[in-house]
Amino acid sequence: MLDSLAPMLTRAEIDEGRRYAAEALADAGVVLRDDERAALEVSDFGLGDLSGTGLQLLVYVNTDRVCAKELVLRPGQTCPEHRHLGEGDEPGKEETFRCRRGEVWLYVEGDPASSPRANPPRREHYSVWHEIVLHPGDQHTIHPGTRHWFQAGPDGAIVTEFSTRSTDERDVFTDPDIRRITVVGD
Amino acid sequence: MLDSLAPMLTRAEIDEGRRYAAEALADAGVVLRDDERAALEVSDFGLGDLSGTGLQLLVYVNTDRVCAKELVLRPGQTCPEHRHLGEGDEPGKEETFRCRRGEVWLYVEGDPASSPRANPPRREHYSVWHEIVLHPGDQHTIHPGTRHWFQAGPDGAIVTEFSTRSTDERDVFTDPDIRRITVVGD
Repeated sequence: MLDSLAPMLTRAEIDEGRRYAAEALADAGVVLRDDERAALEVSDFGLGDLSGTGLQLLVYVNTDRVCAKELVLRPGQTCPEHRHLGEGDEPGKEETFRCRRGEVWLYVEGDPASSPRANPPRREHYSVWHEIVLHPGDQHTIHPGTRHWFQAGPDGAIVTEFSTRSTDERDVFTDPDIRRITVVGD
Repeated sequence: MLDSLAPMLTRAEIDEGRRYAAEALADAGVVLRDDERAALEVSDFGLGDLSGTGLQLLVYVNTDRVCAKELVLRPGQTCPEHRHLGEGDEPGKEETFRCRRGEVWLYVEGDPASSPRANPPRREHYSVWHEIVLHPGDQHTIHPGTRHWFQAGPDGAIVTEFSTRSTDERDVFTDPDIRRITVVGD
């Protein structure tokens, strides 16, 4: 019953998100197989505001040790603040973000920007404001446990992520209403 | 004295290899920074036959846990047979090769192909002949310790490698004359 009351993505929104991401990747010269195009992931992080807080993504590989993804963002779309916890002897996820297309405003722990470029929805749930601007060819490595978030500039963006194993269930989001697993409606 | 007798790449060969790789990557939509373009690695594996046995590569990132590279091959160029050993508790390098452009003939342990597409120079130093043909969008994961090698098809190729930490000094090549560290002449 709770699930049916929660915000959810419609099939139409998912199809449209997949279409957008597939086109953006094709424009950037990234060749996808048909099965990859059909499986592109669209996430609204459970907030029901996909164009504001959301992400389209393709997972190339995710083994016990290595993960690689393409992250596609619409203009102004935000991947919300979170950090990656470890478990036992394993440190949390380490990520390198490399900008392929567009402009990305990445925020990490450190001296806050006095006039940050990004303005995320639900701003009260964002706590780190050290700004790193990534243009195509620029990249930045996020160390385990570090809070971070990012927003695409006015043309949208493509970011390739090189990382250790991806374990979404161990991501801790600052916004308590976020759920990483997308609920799909009709 | 030994070094001066060993095969070595000339500055002109390295410059030409870098130019070729930068152009191939640009054609594929991969944006490089100026410092990356200038640092593209050209390796002849110490055999002095770059167009036969060789590789052009860009290392995006190589931390204690994660590595990512673009590998650029000229038509028919071969990355020679090798495997990645572990050390102590750490298993050897795990690699996923994703073909971006061109056709790649990848050989791993397993049932040998009866009519393999590739014909590497110094063929006597190749022992694994299980053939995997990769077209753009196709990928294959190589597990630690597994012997492997690959050759580009007639149009050359670009392969993105997602892996654990790259430790060239722990690579074991089947061909005893191979040295991974390139010697540069005048």
